[in-house]
Amino acid sequence: MDFEKYYMENLKDTKQKLKESVKFDDFIVQAINNIDEINRVVNTLAKRLRDWYEFYNPEFSREVYDHEEFVNAVIERKDKKKKDSMGADIDKEDMKPILDLAKGIESLFKLKKEQEKYLEKIMEDNCPNISAVAGSLIGARLIAIAGDLKRLVLFPASTVQLLGAEKALFRHMKTKAKAPKYGVIIKHPLVARVSKGKKGKAARKLADKILLAAKIDYFKGEFIGDKLRKEVEEEFK
Amino acid sequence: MDFEKYYMENLKDTKQKLKESVKFDDFIVQAINNIDEINRVVNTLAKRLRDWYEFYNPEFSREVYDHEEFVNAVIERKDKKKKDSMGADIDKEDMKPILDLAKGIESLFKLKKEQEKYLEKIMEDNCPNISAVAGSLIGARLIAIAGDLKRLVLFPASTVQLLGAEKALFRHMKTKAKAPKYGVIIKHPLVARVSKGKKGKAARKLADKILLAAKIDYFKGEFIGDKLRKEVEEEFK
Repeated sequence: MDFEKYYMENLKDTKQKLKESVKFDDFIVQAINNIDEINRVVNTLAKRLRDWYEFYNPEFSREVYDHEEFVNAVIERKDKKKKDSMGADIDKEDMKPILDLAKGIESLFKLKKEQEKYLEKIMEDNCPNISAVAGSLIGARLIAIAGDLKRLVLFPASTVQLLGAEKALFRHMKTKAKAPKYGVIIKHPLVARVSKGKKGKAARKLADKILLAAKIDYFKGEFIGDKLRKEVEEEFK
Repeated sequence: MDFEKYYMENLKDTKQKLKESVKFDDFIVQAINNIDEINRVVNTLAKRLRDWYEFYNPEFSREVYDHEEFVNAVIERKDKKKKDSMGADIDKEDMKPILDLAKGIESLFKLKKEQEKYLEKIMEDNCPNISAVAGSLIGARLIAIAGDLKRLVLFPASTVQLLGAEKALFRHMKTKAKAPKYGVIIKHPLVARVSKGKKGKAARKLADKILLAAKIDYFKGEFIGDKLRKEVEEEFK
């Protein structure tokens, strides 16, 4: 076989392998990273909107803390401007770009929700046990930080507990800063509910269960997510 | 007059003053900062879209460098996937969030163009001479960095030349790094066209004219932007 032919066959083979190398994990990682990015973007633009809108109605911006609520109120012109407001009178012409920006942010909120729905779907299809115990967002974040499901499964529970706290961990190793006790797990409703002194222990218990769920998902075991979830809930009582 | 009454009168007066303190400069600053923010956001999300889309058609993403062109091609499914593509076959279900993201970016591109139109309008209404010489985007950026038109007018031309290069300037002052020769002015088509060694001198000439234009705008002088622009163009021949 001449070299040219050998090379072409090899190339074809490699391309095929690359083609087949895309796994569901990749979609999960893309989806969650995208959701987090949209979150950052929405926050930045919402702050910009507030800044701008405060020329017109500074009092209202301070009354509504939630960005989404604020954006919707601006679009629907629901905000009542007080008679003695410090805000300037603004021409319709100057109000238009402000409303346009608000609408742009609104569509990003919608996009985020669509992407969360999609993530929920692929998490439930591929990692039903993780989804049940950790929720689709936290589960996906753990997979994304580990790289893929396989690598997540190979971690010890003590690592899973700290995934997402890499910065604090390195700071701890380099300086005398305190060791972190939890990573992305902290946002789980069960951990969030626990009092501050007990969060570390709670995070560890949850990490144990998530890791167990991840192993079942990785080896395509049965769905026992509901049982696992109940067990965690019991422990957290 | 009792204190309570004095206090209320004072408050009312202050509120009124605040109300009247919003000037056209503020809208210019908001608009240009917003445009630059949307630019950053669009770039971030477009990179994310490419990253995701490359699972499906990696060859195509590398062929189209322009983000906007790429986004439109994805939305209209204009990209031809090569028969021997390394990209994976993707279910319709997994393609949807990718298309949603592309549409989200497309609407941000539109938002940016709307905001640029608005900025052009208020720049031409309020700073016609600056607009003619510097263009509405660069003119607005100079006003935004200075704070407002009044402060821009009070700068010497050598400062106007460097506005936007603050980082490089401080690096130069603290270390032995080279002094910057131009700030945001560098993006002006006349400066961009000049060969590298001559950019500093060109930036200085342009800064002179912009400052002159800004002074005329600040003192509400006549529109001589076309004349000023021609003079600069002559000098750059």
